[in-house]
Amino acid sequence: MADESQKWVLMVTAQTPTNIAVIKYWGKRDENLILAINDSISVTLDPAHLCTTTTVAVSPAFDQDRMWLNGKEISLSGGRYQNCLREIRARANDVEDKKKGVKIAKKDWENLHVHVASYNNFPTAAGLASSAAGFACLVYSLAKLMNVQEDNGRLSAIARQGSGSACRSLYGGFVKWVMGKEENGSDSIAVPLVDEKHWDELVIIIAVVCSRQKETSSTSGMRETVETSALIEHRAKEVVPKRIIQMEEAIQKRDFATFTHLTCADSNQFHAVCLDTSPPIFYMNDTSHRQVLVTLSYLHEVRGTSYS
Amino acid sequence: MADESQKWVLMVTAQTPTNIAVIKYWGKRDENLILAINDSISVTLDPAHLCTTTTVAVSPAFDQDRMWLNGKEISLSGGRYQNCLREIRARANDVEDKKKGVKIAKKDWENLHVHVASYNNFPTAAGLASSAAGFACLVYSLAKLMNVQEDNGRLSAIARQGSGSACRSLYGGFVKWVMGKEENGSDSIAVPLVDEKHWDELVIIIAVVCSRQKETSSTSGMRETVETSALIEHRAKEVVPKRIIQMEEAIQKRDFATFTHLTCADSNQFHAVCLDTSPPIFYMNDTSHRQVLVTLSYLHEVRGTSYS
Repeated sequence: MADESQKWVLMVTAQTPTNIAVIKYWGKRDENLILAINDSISVTLDPAHLCTTTTVAVSPAFDQDRMWLNGKEISLSGGRYQNCLREIRARANDVEDKKKGVKIAKKDWENLHVHVASYNNFPTAAGLASSAAGFACLVYSLAKLMNVQEDNGRLSAIARQGSGSACRSLYGGFVKWVMGKEENGSDSIAVPLVDEKHWDELVIIIAVVCSRQKETSSTSGMRETVETSALIEHRAKEVVPKRIIQMEEAIQKRDFATFTHLTCADSNQFHAVCLDTSPPIFYMNDTSHRQVLVTLSYLHEVRGTSYS
Repeated sequence: MADESQKWVLMVTAQTPTNIAVIKYWGKRDENLILAINDSISVTLDPAHLCTTTTVAVSPAFDQDRMWLNGKEISLSGGRYQNCLREIRARANDVEDKKKGVKIAKKDWENLHVHVASYNNFPTAAGLASSAAGFACLVYSLAKLMNVQEDNGRLSAIARQGSGSACRSLYGGFVKWVMGKEENGSDSIAVPLVDEKHWDELVIIIAVVCSRQKETSSTSGMRETVETSALIEHRAKEVVPKRIIQMEEAIQKRDFATFTHLTCADSNQFHAVCLDTSPPIFYMNDTSHRQVLVTLSYLHEVRGTSYS
């Protein structure tokens, strides 16, 4: 029989939106720490739309860490989950829930296990950054549960070790993931570029062209690109740094024409380096090709008009 | 009534195969002379398969130069046709047909007009290099008609002014179009890399995925790429020169694994820079994507085996 004192459960639920890169992250310089070969910039979506909802629970009755994604149990044994769990646990603090009469001391966390239930309200692994929202939400909710005192910048460096683009989902609005220089990744964090309300009239339309899981995961896709593309290094070192500066300026000025031009050009260049990979990676199909052209001709029409 | 002496017609018919680039030409440094931004290498197909058949005729009864393509009259007023006609006419020599009792003096050619009838036995402007075969055949047949004494290298520099890749169709087997350095394009010519029979057991399979005319012509497509792609200059200056050396070596050694790897990689990179163009150019569709992957997995299987 279980001891009565073992029956308590503490829970935290959080919601984190996905983010869509306008200057793309594609390629790692460190696979384990997940350090990128270039800076990237994204827009975090409205949490009311595409988001992950994660509940984390701790109880002395749990004998191991477990996780369910969209209702199905998944393994937490992978390095990415283990890195996030270890980094958050290492920063845990005393927690007290007076109503439940529960006290967890800082040192107890290493012996306690968590259960995680995570749901995406949009297609998983279909190019909509489900792992970004997922890992950001996991790290954020665990940090709340364990009373971690780090700011979102420090948390972003932990979420980054789950999925690179996850670091950008810890802030709203326009967010830059600074690639950083340190070997340990301590300066590879997300920073908000502007106040969340800075460009509030910008509307983002997500058209789901195909909700099937993509054939090549981002992880293996970007590894193959870095290993085989003859264009990726030039993109990362020469093209992206200039675009990052132009994009930051376009966002500051709410310059819709430049913003959309750079976003389209960088998205197409990301698909271009995928195609330059050996064997080539195709993330677009005939439907997305048509959609790109329709969008561009629409933008061409509105670009001339004033946008306030 | 026409003078009886006006009734003679001299005709020459020639057949020229298309050529398929294995290191691609994409981008001009001179639009009028058609000078490329990089060397390219192609395989000329068997004239028994994809080819253009052109008949050129001269008669004092013709009052203007005219041309029919696939049975439909087309205008010769464009600069490309005019450049080819002018360059060939400038090199015309005395011609005598004793059977017909016809004598044309070198100086007469500037006052005589030609009629040209050209047929492609494959889809025109659908990515199968119809303009390459077409202009090569036009220049070759006119040169025969007008008794031009230049070798195929010199003729290739004239065909190049009709369509860049046409220069490579003047030779069989593996042909390199040397981009050259001269401003007047005199050193931008085709050179055969090996004897036509060097790799005779190589079989080329052409799968027509879509026979409709492509939506973006090569001419405007490559102009837009040169003007807007952030990757094309790196491709032309850094990537292609190395690949040209590797490809020449693979052809010399009949190294099938390297040959197919480079061919696929360069074809994909050509499509990549098209995608990096603003607005993007799509020359592949879902069917060609699948075909690329099927071909690559087939090649992966055979690459391990010996190839003699």
